[in-house]
Amino acid sequence: MTVPGTLYGVGLGPGDPDLITRRAARLIEGARVVAYPALAGGDSFARAIAANMIPATAREIVMEVPMTPARAPAQAAYDAGAARIAEALDAGDDVVVLCEGDPFFYGSFMYLHARLAPLFAVEVVPGVTSVTACAARAGLPLAARNETLTVLPGPLPDAELRARIREADTLVLMKVGRHLSRLRALLDAEGLLDRAVYVERATLPVERRLPLAEAPDPAPYFSMILVTKGADPWL
Amino acid sequence: MTVPGTLYGVGLGPGDPDLITRRAARLIEGARVVAYPALAGGDSFARAIAANMIPATAREIVMEVPMTPARAPAQAAYDAGAARIAEALDAGDDVVVLCEGDPFFYGSFMYLHARLAPLFAVEVVPGVTSVTACAARAGLPLAARNETLTVLPGPLPDAELRARIREADTLVLMKVGRHLSRLRALLDAEGLLDRAVYVERATLPVERRLPLAEAPDPAPYFSMILVTKGADPWL
Repeated sequence: MTVPGTLYGVGLGPGDPDLITRRAARLIEGARVVAYPALAGGDSFARAIAANMIPATAREIVMEVPMTPARAPAQAAYDAGAARIAEALDAGDDVVVLCEGDPFFYGSFMYLHARLAPLFAVEVVPGVTSVTACAARAGLPLAARNETLTVLPGPLPDAELRARIREADTLVLMKVGRHLSRLRALLDAEGLLDRAVYVERATLPVERRLPLAEAPDPAPYFSMILVTKGADPWL
Repeated sequence: MTVPGTLYGVGLGPGDPDLITRRAARLIEGARVVAYPALAGGDSFARAIAANMIPATAREIVMEVPMTPARAPAQAAYDAGAARIAEALDAGDDVVVLCEGDPFFYGSFMYLHARLAPLFAVEVVPGVTSVTACAARAGLPLAARNETLTVLPGPLPDAELRARIREADTLVLMKVGRHLSRLRALLDAEGLLDRAVYVERATLPVERRLPLAEAPDPAPYFSMILVTKGADPWL
């Protein structure tokens, strides 16, 4: 009887391959099967980050995930991907799933995890998130001592964003994209525009950092707004 | 004239040396001068994580930081540490500061950054935080789609914690330590005890994971409570 393989959900960090952890690098370099999401058409940011580490002999399972507001097409893509991954695991191969950032922080790996963790051995390898990467690149400490940190997805409705922005110490707005103008107006209304920093594609050669007032609209999907309100870094 | 060195604030991740990034590993392995905080008496968790990578020839600048509620003694320790680091930088050496987790996420590096960044070239190397490490080890996805993530330090007053706990989707309570019973009571009052997971020293050989109801009191400083309220991992 074949012993089933292990499913590895491997965080790759924000984009610079040097920010991959040693454990992630070793798993990728030794992989017989890798799997990753890609946009319909084939581009995969996760694969691009790890490209130089994937063995030429590795089999690649590509999950083309449609970017639509409707959930059913993406659900179908993860169902199909999980089935192909399960087949490899059942055949005794380990499968290394490549994940941008961290697998459990706004990552698509959690959809595979929900489907496969009840059936197979799983190890999740945490990665550097875009949050701390953006802060590092911008030279902005995120939170010290008893400060709180709030992470908000940009697509949330205005009223919810406004309430949470008011209460926050340090504030991270993710998934900015086409919501940039709206988020900028909300922050401006709260008197926070001067403290808001925009970071796009942090740690990649094409990274851009700007005061939010000067940020492009619409922004790319991989962009973020940081507002550090309460930092008192002198201790 | 000597060209001053560069100050590197290097995140080491949550504790397992395999979760150090490739960039951090290379900087440590090539270091002529490393610096790190230690408890009065000499134990340094940061140094322990990186111990096998520090060259035998490296000079070590130890900052003994007293753990007292008063700020002045710790301020004095960072003042003195920054002065010694500045001396090495002025002499032309790079200095690699070892930081548990991420340098800008509740890390003491930000106190050195505030003192030295106006004077020297600085690079911050982000690291894996204990937040995503605990989630990975517990098998608990943190946040998907439009869910928010709230990070709260345990020492905050009850009223503030209660209000923020009520509003949160996914909730991370840091710096649990001697606040464990109080935090447990607050979560219980909000009907969240069943969903609260306690993780201690994540990714180390001595790691412990328990339902919060069974967690030890007091907890060690390096412990965390995760509450995932709204996760819908099937997409």
